[in-house]
Amino acid sequence: MPSKVKCLASLEAGKYPVPSTVARRDLRSDDIEIKILYCGICHSDIHHVRNNWGPDGYGYPVVPGHEIVGKVFRVGAEVSKFKIGDSVGVGCMVDSCQTCATCKNDREQYCDSATFTYGSLDRRDGSRTYGGYTETIVVTEKFVLSIPESLDLAGAAPLLCAGITTYSPLRRWGAHPGSKVGVVGLGGLGHMALKLAKAMGADVTLFSRSQGKAEDAKRLGADQFLISSDPERMETAAGQFDLIIDTVPYKHDVNPYIKALVPEGSLVLVGYFGPLEPTVNSAPLVLRSQNLAGSLIGGIKETQEMLDFCGQHKIMSDIEVIDARDLHSAYERLVKGDVLQRFVIDITTL
Amino acid sequence: MPSKVKCLASLEAGKYPVPSTVARRDLRSDDIEIKILYCGICHSDIHHVRNNWGPDGYGYPVVPGHEIVGKVFRVGAEVSKFKIGDSVGVGCMVDSCQTCATCKNDREQYCDSATFTYGSLDRRDGSRTYGGYTETIVVTEKFVLSIPESLDLAGAAPLLCAGITTYSPLRRWGAHPGSKVGVVGLGGLGHMALKLAKAMGADVTLFSRSQGKAEDAKRLGADQFLISSDPERMETAAGQFDLIIDTVPYKHDVNPYIKALVPEGSLVLVGYFGPLEPTVNSAPLVLRSQNLAGSLIGGIKETQEMLDFCGQHKIMSDIEVIDARDLHSAYERLVKGDVLQRFVIDITTL
Repeated sequence: MPSKVKCLASLEAGKYPVPSTVARRDLRSDDIEIKILYCGICHSDIHHVRNNWGPDGYGYPVVPGHEIVGKVFRVGAEVSKFKIGDSVGVGCMVDSCQTCATCKNDREQYCDSATFTYGSLDRRDGSRTYGGYTETIVVTEKFVLSIPESLDLAGAAPLLCAGITTYSPLRRWGAHPGSKVGVVGLGGLGHMALKLAKAMGADVTLFSRSQGKAEDAKRLGADQFLISSDPERMETAAGQFDLIIDTVPYKHDVNPYIKALVPEGSLVLVGYFGPLEPTVNSAPLVLRSQNLAGSLIGGIKETQEMLDFCGQHKIMSDIEVIDARDLHSAYERLVKGDVLQRFVIDITTL
Repeated sequence: MPSKVKCLASLEAGKYPVPSTVARRDLRSDDIEIKILYCGICHSDIHHVRNNWGPDGYGYPVVPGHEIVGKVFRVGAEVSKFKIGDSVGVGCMVDSCQTCATCKNDREQYCDSATFTYGSLDRRDGSRTYGGYTETIVVTEKFVLSIPESLDLAGAAPLLCAGITTYSPLRRWGAHPGSKVGVVGLGGLGHMALKLAKAMGADVTLFSRSQGKAEDAKRLGADQFLISSDPERMETAAGQFDLIIDTVPYKHDVNPYIKALVPEGSLVLVGYFGPLEPTVNSAPLVLRSQNLAGSLIGGIKETQEMLDFCGQHKIMSDIEVIDARDLHSAYERLVKGDVLQRFVIDITTL
C-alpha cells in the first residue's frame, strides 16, 4: 500500500509550499525508501513554485526539493548497492531510460525521457514525482547516491545540485594545479565552484559586482577578488583565465569574461538560460580559439565521483539550517539575492 | 644586399594589386629563401587590400598572400631543417617571440607579437613584411613547412591557411570514426573541412543555403547534404551532430546549428568575426552542455602535422590556377561568393 507522508507542497501555481501530505509508492524490487533528514533549497525550486518556466506539464501540487539527504529506511528485494541505515542522497533525477546513447554514456541528464525528482512522471506507473520537502522518498537504487561518512549530512545536501553543477564543468574544462580559474558570482553555485576549484588545485579569482563579497570570498579560499562592475579592474583581467565558471542567474554581459580568457580558454555558463544580451562578439572567440559553453548538472556516475571527491577533501556547502515553518522567509531572502550560503530544511521539523 | 623581386602589390587602400617590385632581405643565418611557385588567394587578402578591417597599421603597399608553396633556393649558414630544392610552404605567420607561454606551447598564432606574413613588421629589423604574391620570400626556418612529396604543389598551397583553419578544430573537437560532423558552407574553407573530416573517418553532412552545392558536396565525399535555408529540413537535424564547423564568413543565425548538436557537442566558428545576430540563446548551451567556440589557424607544429596528414591521405584543395594578370577577375568572383575551389596564382606568370 502506498503510504501518505507529510510534506511541503505548492498547491497552485505561484503559491509558496505549505504543509500537506503526499503518497509514496510501495517499494518495487529495485527501490530504496529513504527517510529524508535534510533537503536543500535550490533557486529552481522557487522558479517551479512560481511557475516562472511556463506551465508545469503535470500541474499542482508541486513538492519541490532535489538536494536530498537521509538514511536508507527500507530496501526492495533486489537492491544490492545499499543497506538499511546507509547515508544516501538524491539529486535532480530519479530515473531515465537506461537504453539511449546518453544514458549508456553515463549522461542521464540529457536523456530525452529522464525523470526529474519533482514535476515529472514516473516511467513505470505514470504517477507524478514529488521532491524532497517530504519525510520520505522512494527511488530506484540506480539513482541513489552514497554520502561519504566524512561529510555532515546537512552540509552535503546542496552537493546534489549546486555541487555537481559546478564540479562537472570544472572537471571537463580542466581546473587543476597550475590553472587559473575564475568564478563569477558568490551565491549557492558560486561558493561551491570556489571551494571545488581550490580543492582541485587551481588558483581561483572570484568576480562579483559587490565589494561586500570580498571578505567571504577570501574566507572561502579565493586567491583573488575582482569587482566585475569596474571596467578598469576588469581590463586588468584580460587574457588571464584558463576557465571561468559563470554562475550569475540573470541576463548580463558575458563579453568581458570572454576577454578575460587565455587563448583556448573556456567560459562556462551554469546560471543563466536565455538570450545573451548584449550579444556575444565572435571575434575574440575566433581570434583566440575560445569557447563559450554551458553545463547542466552531471550524470549519476559523475555525481558519485563528486561526492567521493568532496568526502576526501571534506567539502560541504555553507548552509543555514531552517525549520520547515521558516520556508517562506528563506524563499524571500533567496529571491532578494545576495545569500551566499544554501538554505537547508531540517525535515524532522515538518 | 637586399634583392628586388617582382610582385603584385596593392599600392593604396582599396586598390587591387598591380605589378610592382619589393625588396627581400639578405639571408640571416637561420633564413631560407624560397622561390615561390604558387600562392593561394584567401578571402582575407581581399579584406586587407580593401582595408575592410580598418586602417592597416603599417600602410601601403600591401603584398598579400599567405598560402605559399615553392622550392628552397638558398639557405642561411645555420639552417638545418631544409636543403636547396626542398618543397616547402609558408602560411599566415613568419615569426613569433618564441618565449611566451603560447609560443612555448606550440600556439604561435596567439603570440602577442606574432609576425604575420604580410602587413606586419619584422621582429629584428623592423622592416615591413610582404606576402606571397612575389617571386621569392625569405623566412626563418622555424616558420617554413615541409610539403609532402605526394602532394601537387598548386593544390597544396591552400592547405597553409584553409587547410589548417579547418584541420585544427576538427582535431581539437574530435572528428573521428563514429562521429557525426557538419560543415556549414562549401567555399574555400568548407570544402577543406569536408575533405579533412572524411579523411578522419567522420560521417559528414554539408549544410548550404544553395541546392546548387549538393552535387559538389557529394562529389567531395559528403555523406549527406542539407539545405540550411529550409527550417523544416533543419528541424530534422536537431540533436544529431557531435561537431559542426561553420565556415560562413558573414553575419548569420548560429542558433539552428546549436540546436543541431548532440549534448556536449561543439559548434566552431572559423569564418565570421563580429557580433552574433540574432543573439545566441544560452538555454540549449546550458541544458545540453554544448559549446560555441571559435578557432584560428594553428601553430607551426600542428600545421606540419596537418600537411603530413594531407600527404598521407592525398588531400589537396580543389583549385583553379590563374595567371597573375587574371588576379582582379578572380578577386571579383570571390567577392561575389559562390566559388567552391580556391584560386591559386601561378607565380611564374608574374
